[in-house]
Amino acid sequence: MQNELQISHRGVEMPESPIRKLAPLAYAAEDRGVMIHRLNIGQPDLPTPQKALDALKNVDRTTLEYSPSQGYRSLRKALVNYYERYQIKLDADDIIITCGGSEAVLFAFMSCLNPGDEIIVPEPAYANYMAFAVSAGAVIRTIATTIDEGFCLPKVERFEELINERTKAILICNPNNPTGYLYTQREMNQIRDLVKKHNLYLFSDEVYREFIYTGSPYISAMHLEGIEQNVVLIDSVSKRYSECGIRIGALITKNAAVRKTVMKFCQARLSPPLIGQIVAEASIEGTEAYSREVYEEYTERRKCLIDGVNRIPGCYTPIPMGAFYTVAKLPVDDAEEFCAWCLEEFKWKDEHTPASISFSGQEIPCTGETVMMAPAAGFYTTPGMGKNEVRLAYVLKKDDLRRALFILGKALEAYNAEKSKKN
Amino acid sequence: MQNELQISHRGVEMPESPIRKLAPLAYAAEDRGVMIHRLNIGQPDLPTPQKALDALKNVDRTTLEYSPSQGYRSLRKALVNYYERYQIKLDADDIIITCGGSEAVLFAFMSCLNPGDEIIVPEPAYANYMAFAVSAGAVIRTIATTIDEGFCLPKVERFEELINERTKAILICNPNNPTGYLYTQREMNQIRDLVKKHNLYLFSDEVYREFIYTGSPYISAMHLEGIEQNVVLIDSVSKRYSECGIRIGALITKNAAVRKTVMKFCQARLSPPLIGQIVAEASIEGTEAYSREVYEEYTERRKCLIDGVNRIPGCYTPIPMGAFYTVAKLPVDDAEEFCAWCLEEFKWKDEHTPASISFSGQEIPCTGETVMMAPAAGFYTTPGMGKNEVRLAYVLKKDDLRRALFILGKALEAYNAEKSKKN
Repeated sequence: MQNELQISHRGVEMPESPIRKLAPLAYAAEDRGVMIHRLNIGQPDLPTPQKALDALKNVDRTTLEYSPSQGYRSLRKALVNYYERYQIKLDADDIIITCGGSEAVLFAFMSCLNPGDEIIVPEPAYANYMAFAVSAGAVIRTIATTIDEGFCLPKVERFEELINERTKAILICNPNNPTGYLYTQREMNQIRDLVKKHNLYLFSDEVYREFIYTGSPYISAMHLEGIEQNVVLIDSVSKRYSECGIRIGALITKNAAVRKTVMKFCQARLSPPLIGQIVAEASIEGTEAYSREVYEEYTERRKCLIDGVNRIPGCYTPIPMGAFYTVAKLPVDDAEEFCAWCLEEFKWKDEHTPASISFSGQEIPCTGETVMMAPAAGFYTTPGMGKNEVRLAYVLKKDDLRRALFILGKALEAYNAEKSKKN
Repeated sequence: MQNELQISHRGVEMPESPIRKLAPLAYAAEDRGVMIHRLNIGQPDLPTPQKALDALKNVDRTTLEYSPSQGYRSLRKALVNYYERYQIKLDADDIIITCGGSEAVLFAFMSCLNPGDEIIVPEPAYANYMAFAVSAGAVIRTIATTIDEGFCLPKVERFEELINERTKAILICNPNNPTGYLYTQREMNQIRDLVKKHNLYLFSDEVYREFIYTGSPYISAMHLEGIEQNVVLIDSVSKRYSECGIRIGALITKNAAVRKTVMKFCQARLSPPLIGQIVAEASIEGTEAYSREVYEEYTERRKCLIDGVNRIPGCYTPIPMGAFYTVAKLPVDDAEEFCAWCLEEFKWKDEHTPASISFSGQEIPCTGETVMMAPAAGFYTTPGMGKNEVRLAYVLKKDDLRRALFILGKALEAYNAEKSKKN
C-alpha cells in the first residue's frame, strides 16, 4: 500500500510559460556580454503615473493590515467612474478586486467550470489561459484565426462545430494579446448570439482597452444586450498605468450567483494586496494627460514596429488595431529554433554597439547585440500552428525598436545563410 | 442541448469563511451605535516595523514592474538568513515567494494532489485549508483533537486508521491556529515516522513560529531527518511583522520536482506583489528589538486572556503554547447562536462605555458594547464537534481584552438567564 511520492497530473499537464522558456538562454547570453533587445516581453517600460507614485510615498498607515476580501470600496467606486467613460454602467458591488487579472481568470474558471467542461478560445491566445484551465480541470478548445486572414474571427459555423454538451463558455481577449486584433461590432454580435443561443458564459479579458489605434469603436462584452448574466469581465490596471508589479486586477459581473461564488475563493485567500490598491486608486482619476501621452507613444511605436517588420525581406505582420503586441511571420521553418539560435549563436557588432552592458549589477564589456522574441507556437494549441511566427511587443523606445529590427534582419540573413550552407 | 448557466460544483462546495460569516451582523450592530470588542480576528493591531514602513516610503522606482515569478533573489536570500536562526538550512532556490501563505497552500495542493486524493489534518484546523482542498479537488480527512485533552495529537493508531491508498499528505499547523497548540518532539517524531512509512507529503504551516510562549523547543518539519523530500513548508511574514496586507508568503521545499511544478503555477500568475517584497525584505533583518517587543506584548496579552476566560463561570480554555489564538469552551449549547445573539440582541452599558464610536467615517453616539467571537464549529469538519467552543484571538491591547472579557461574562449571564426563562 506504499504510495509513490508523485506530483499531480495537473502539475504535469501545466504548460511552462512560452514567454519565459528562453530566459535561461538569455541569461547565458548576457553573461557572455551580449546585449539583448527584448521584443518578447509585455512589461511596459513607461513610468507609472506620478500621482500613483506619490500615493505610494504618502501611505501613512502604521499597520499594513488586511483589506476586505472584495477590495476597498473606494477603489471599486473609482472603477465605476472609470468604466462610465466607456459607457459601461456598474455598481461598486459588481466589482471584485483581484490579485492581478490572472487571479480574476482563475477565479472565473474555478467558479463557473467543472472538470471536463469546455471553453472555446480563438487562437493564438494568451498562453496562461491554458494554465488556468488546467488548474480548474477545464478543457480549452481553440478555434483557429490566422495571420493570413489578419486574425479575424472565423464564421459562426466553425464555432457551432465545436459546441457540445460540455461547452460552458467562450473566452475572448479584446484587444487581443498576442495578435493586437480588435473585434468588430459584427464579430461581437456573432459572439453575443452564440452565447445567448447556447446559454454560455462569456469571459472577456479587456485589459488593453486603453490601447486602440483605429477609428473602430471598442465594443466591450459589457455592451452586448441580452447576455448581462453571462458576461464576466476580466480587467487589470497593470498595462494601462505601467504598474504590473502591484498585482491589482478585477473580476466584474452582473451575475450575483457568480459573484457570491467568486467571493468564497476571495475569502479563502483573505485579501488583495493593500498597497497595490492604494496605488491603483490613485492611478484612475486625474491621469487623463498621462494616458494620452502613453497612448501617443504607443501609437508611434506601433507604426515604427509594423513598418520595420514588413520592410525586412520575407517578414510579414498584419496591422494590429490594439494592445502593444503583434504576431509576425518570419522567413524560417521553425521560429522557436530561430529564437533560441539568436540567443545562443548570434551576435551583431558595429559602430553603434555600446561599449558595455550592465549585468548582475556590474558593467561588463559588450561583445555584440541580439534580439529576443516569443515564439508564437506557444500561443496556439493546435500542433503545427504558428511555427514560423513570433510575438513581438512594442514596449521599447522607438530608437531601440529600430535597432532591434535592424539586428533581427541581420540575424535572419545569417541564420538562413547558415541553413543553406548546411543543405 | 441548451446548457443551464450554473456555477461549478466546487464553487457550491466551497465553504464560506466561518470568521467572516458574522460580518453583516457586526455591521448592523455598529450601525445601531454598538461598540464591538473584536476577539474574532487574526489581524494584529501592532504596528509594522518602522524599518519596513521606511522602505515603503523610500521606494524610488519610476516603473512598478513585474518581479520574477519566484520572487526577488534578495528577499529569498534574506529569508535564508532568517531560517538559519531556527537551524533550518536552506538555499535561496529552495524558496518560492507567494502571494501570502494562502497561495503557498493552494499551490502545494495543486502541485501535489489529484482530485480525490486525501490529506489528513488534525482538527480543529484553519478553515481555509478546506477551501484550498476544494479548489484542488482534494479531500480533507480530519483526526480529532479535543479541548479536554488540551488539543494534543491522538495516538499513531488513529492516523493509521485513516490512511488508505488515496492518502497523499498530512497537513499540520504548528504552532496551531486556532488552538495555539505546539507539537512536541515526540509528536513530531510520530508524524515523521508516519510520513516516512507511507511516503506522504508533509505540508507544514509554521507562520506563527515567532510566537511560542513555553520553554518547549520549536520543532520545524524542516528539522525532521529522513523526510527532506516529503516536507513542504508554508510560511508568511504577515503575522510576525504585522503586515498581513502586503500579501507575502513563501513555499519552501527541498523537493526539486515539487518546486519545478509550483513554479509553473507561479509563472501563470506572473509574479508576487512587488512592493510587498520590498517591505518584507526590510522587515527581516535588523528588527530583532521589534520582534522582542511584540513577543513580550503577546506574552502578557495571552496571560491576560487565558486568566480572564478561565475566571468566567462555566468557561474553560487550555493554555495555548503558541500563536495568538485560543479555543475556549463556553457554558452554552450552541456557540454560533450565542455569537450571533451577542451581535443582534445584546449590549452592555455602564460608566466605562465610551460616548461615541466611529462608524463609516462618522462619530455616532455609542448605545452599548458587545463582543464578537469566531464560533469554533467552523474549524472542525466532524459534525457536532466544537459546538460550544469559540476561537478567541488576543490581538487587542490588555485593557481592551479585559473589558471584552468582562462584557463576555455579562453576555453569558444575560443569555443563559433568557434561555432559562424561556424553558
